[in-house]
Amino acid sequence: MYEYVYQHRVRYRECDPMGVVYHTHYLDYFEAARTEALRDLGIAYRDIEAGGIIMPVIDLDVQYKRPAHYDDMLDIVTRFETMPSVRVPIAYTVQRTGDADVLATGTVTLCFMDAERRRPTRPPAAMRHTFEQALAD
Amino acid sequence: MYEYVYQHRVRYRECDPMGVVYHTHYLDYFEAARTEALRDLGIAYRDIEAGGIIMPVIDLDVQYKRPAHYDDMLDIVTRFETMPSVRVPIAYTVQRTGDADVLATGTVTLCFMDAERRRPTRPPAAMRHTFEQALAD
Amino acid sequence: MYEYVYQHRVRYRECDPMGVVYHTHYLDYFEAARTEALRDLGIAYRDIEAGGIIMPVIDLDVQYKRPAHYDDMLDIVTRFETMPSVRVPIAYTVQRTGDADVLATGTVTLCFMDAERRRPTRPPAAMRHTFEQALAD
Amino acid sequence: MYEYVYQHRVRYRECDPMGVVYHTHYLDYFEAARTEALRDLGIAYRDIEAGGIIMPVIDLDVQYKRPAHYDDMLDIVTRFETMPSVRVPIAYTVQRTGDADVLATGTVTLCFMDAERRRPTRPPAAMRHTFEQALAD
Repeated sequence: MYEYVYQHRVRYRECDPMGVVYHTHYLDYFEAARTEALRDLGIAYRDIEAGGIIMPVIDLDVQYKRPAHYDDMLDIVTRFETMPSVRVPIAYTVQRTGDADVLATGTVTLCFMDAERRRPTRPPAAMRHTFEQALAD
Repeated sequence: MYEYVYQHRVRYRECDPMGVVYHTHYLDYFEAARTEALRDLGIAYRDIEAGGIIMPVIDLDVQYKRPAHYDDMLDIVTRFETMPSVRVPIAYTVQRTGDADVLATGTVTLCFMDAERRRPTRPPAAMRHTFEQALAD
Repeated sequence: MYEYVYQHRVRYRECDPMGVVYHTHYLDYFEAARTEALRDLGIAYRDIEAGGIIMPVIDLDVQYKRPAHYDDMLDIVTRFETMPSVRVPIAYTVQRTGDADVLATGTVTLCFMDAERRRPTRPPAAMRHTFEQALAD
Repeated sequence: MYEYVYQHRVRYRECDPMGVVYHTHYLDYFEAARTEALRDLGIAYRDIEAGGIIMPVIDLDVQYKRPAHYDDMLDIVTRFETMPSVRVPIAYTVQRTGDADVLATGTVTLCFMDAERRRPTRPPAAMRHTFEQALAD
């Protein structure tokens, strides 16, 4: 398993009249978190697209347990647990920095798709190799 | 079961460099759709909050099957299938208006919460009554 | 001058902890309003892009006078006052439907740009013709 | 004058079908930038609100000069040029990190408002003092 922690400061625009983060913004946090987790592994999503592959989201679920508030600093923990095939499930846990309480958990599944033909495809060899090493650690 | 169709025109700001609706915006469509479905039943969420009850999202899942494009007119079909208890699961299906292909499906579960004490609570009697009638039809 | 009224219902996700619409969302309302104003004139922005022209925003200003609240129904009044040259300034006024108080005013200026070369260009002849007629009325 | 540089990595969800940052997101960058600039001065906006004062945006303008692209690292330079009275104008310049080209400039003017009475008010004494020192440097 490979794990990466991305930090995010809650912004005013993300908070609703209940005074807490509106639920959709966790998915924005997840996008930033997986992008930085991949970068940490040496993979820039920008390069994947430049190579003719896109990675649309095909499935997601989120469980909201406790609210996050304005100006909270959050840890978004991203976990890659399996070798990516055509599908790449990525798991997330959100906590306040320095606090064990879990605010939310979720999974977002991406797939590899040929940008030209808009058909599912296998991950690039370099990416498979990177994941093999990361998951072995 | 009670079903309501909400229509939405896809906006430029909702589309990403793949030229399709970015996945998080479907959750915005779902919010508008359930609000209008409740209004169609005679329930304004604004009044629920004025009565001291808030309805945070506690769980959601979405399955993305086909992309929506800029300027598409979408039908967001909202279905209430069960009597609301503390939890209110609401199901959604997204299609292009006049087209049988399903673009996405999902479920967003809200809960009734006492706004003051931030504790789960039972739905207001008037709302239970409205749902009983709607689900009986 | 050509004027068009677009209506929008304020959504929960657009409201902030002050209980009012967060300022950036007025720009989303403006995008929807100008798109529908153009459609009312017979011009689909989707077709402009299909013709190899894009219309990026190059300048904007907004003045916020009174807050809008959750579930308010808003009139976004869009005005085209001058023939589009390379630049297309569009003016907006936001009011609650049926209420004379002005909540916000603003201007968003787009420009015509050749999509391939990313250089300013003149508006398509059909669009100039449409505007000539609309502004003459 | 007091100046602060906030860095932001452009996210996929912020980019549109033209492949560039959609114009409204610069205002989100400005919010994060001024919040961190104030924090750098020792002022947490969260504390201002806890003290019964809110700071709504009353006016803004933005000039877009060059596009930002997906995954670009941006410097958002925030400048406080005048002592805050009831109004607080804050100026911004956006550049790619390490690049002199200006992508966008803008000004967002906030005002101090009594949260309870929703009336303009003077800035807290501590904040005036902080600004006096910062602007003197």
